[in-house]
Amino acid sequence: MKKILIVHAHPEPASLNRQLVDAAVQTLQEQGHEVLTSDLYGMRWKAVFDEDDFPSRADPDRLHFVRESGHAYANGRQTSDVAAEQEKVLAADAVILQFPLWWFGMPAILKGWVDRVWAYGLAYGYQGAGNRYRYGDGAFKGKRAMLSVTVGGPAADYSPRGINGPLEQLLFPITHGTLFFPGMDVLPTHAVYGTGQIDEEAVAAAKAAWRSRLERLFEEAPIPFRRQNGGDYPDRHVLASDVAAGQTGLLAHVADRRTAPHALEEA
Amino acid sequence: MKKILIVHAHPEPASLNRQLVDAAVQTLQEQGHEVLTSDLYGMRWKAVFDEDDFPSRADPDRLHFVRESGHAYANGRQTSDVAAEQEKVLAADAVILQFPLWWFGMPAILKGWVDRVWAYGLAYGYQGAGNRYRYGDGAFKGKRAMLSVTVGGPAADYSPRGINGPLEQLLFPITHGTLFFPGMDVLPTHAVYGTGQIDEEAVAAAKAAWRSRLERLFEEAPIPFRRQNGGDYPDRHVLASDVAAGQTGLLAHVADRRTAPHALEEA
Repeated sequence: MKKILIVHAHPEPASLNRQLVDAAVQTLQEQGHEVLTSDLYGMRWKAVFDEDDFPSRADPDRLHFVRESGHAYANGRQTSDVAAEQEKVLAADAVILQFPLWWFGMPAILKGWVDRVWAYGLAYGYQGAGNRYRYGDGAFKGKRAMLSVTVGGPAADYSPRGINGPLEQLLFPITHGTLFFPGMDVLPTHAVYGTGQIDEEAVAAAKAAWRSRLERLFEEAPIPFRRQNGGDYPDRHVLASDVAAGQTGLLAHVADRRTAPHALEEA
Repeated sequence: MKKILIVHAHPEPASLNRQLVDAAVQTLQEQGHEVLTSDLYGMRWKAVFDEDDFPSRADPDRLHFVRESGHAYANGRQTSDVAAEQEKVLAADAVILQFPLWWFGMPAILKGWVDRVWAYGLAYGYQGAGNRYRYGDGAFKGKRAMLSVTVGGPAADYSPRGINGPLEQLLFPITHGTLFFPGMDVLPTHAVYGTGQIDEEAVAAAKAAWRSRLERLFEEAPIPFRRQNGGDYPDRHVLASDVAAGQTGLLAHVADRRTAPHALEEA
């Protein structure tokens, strides 16, 4: 029995996103797992990270987010909503973020969940050690994570040469920068395309595909992002010259491209 | 005389972000320009896109964001805060987004400005013509745009082989997907690195660099993103086989890489 946290961000109960959440809860429970959910719209989640997040300030005169985040986390002075979400993430063996792709990223309410819940001392600056533990190490090491997105446009637009860019590259700031950063193993993104004009049959097919994807949630191989502390970044900043030699850009941070050549190139 | 809109997202008046806004306002006014600002924290901008954005619904039974956005925009039934921001963008010759990089993207309050202000019929689905006008054409054609970001970590981490990925590739969902999409000419991102540990001297240098960058706001060459309707995408979805032949991924959508080889590779 595992615990899975599903954080989702659509206010319409009949939406495809909510149908996918319901399908996930059912599928995972049928497998004997426990499912936690964070319905951000239903919770009226506070999206904006601001001074109200720090009721007990380290510096009352000047708001410095990193400093106050670290102070609040270390001293148990976070707001209760943030602390509760952190407890759910820490309790989970896997975290799924379910959201509609808006302007090639997360809806603001979900970005605000990350901004507020990913505290200094926990998701970054783990153990007060600066960047010692990021990218493959950290407080969330050993947990799995997956994005599940609904996309209005067609898959072709997100294909390797599609006009929007490949979906997995557009989501790199989330998969690599937000989930792998504090140590999670991130699975390839699950996407339903063409939701702007989707019919009942396609919805049923999308739910079936999502269910069968979830059945392998704990078996599937994660995206082979390179670990900071695995030897590829000797100074913790830049790739060693003999690693992905001559290569630049996002894809240089994905290992095993010979065995997983399309890790970030397919839609 | 031009009009420049600066949308900014930091609540602390003494923050580097706010100092950069002040420096920009002063520099641009000294050049004889008119500056409009949207201080999102100061305005207590509503970040969350939800049913309250649609006081007069096309479909009261099921909230479908694209449909309601198009209905509200076409019928003048948007909320007044959204309409006011659209008027500012439409009045501007250039739009600058000034923000701290949080988890490799915009703070939620700024993402929520995009989610709500970039309406269907205006920023996408322009003239009710689906994707006819996107990427280089559209309601905001002829305007310039630029991101100005403060970055906690060092520049090395965002260098061509840096562990975070190159900054300009991380920001592609914003530069290409959010600003170029409705037709803006997007300038290379302006970044100040290492703001986690910045001293007074470095702040002064950062402000000076920002001021001189702004002096060429209307002369500088934009990122040469390929226009959807310029011939490179015959079906409006995928690159023609002879364009950037054999290339995949985000960088395939930047033209003239021979003359601007580092367009998305340098930090």
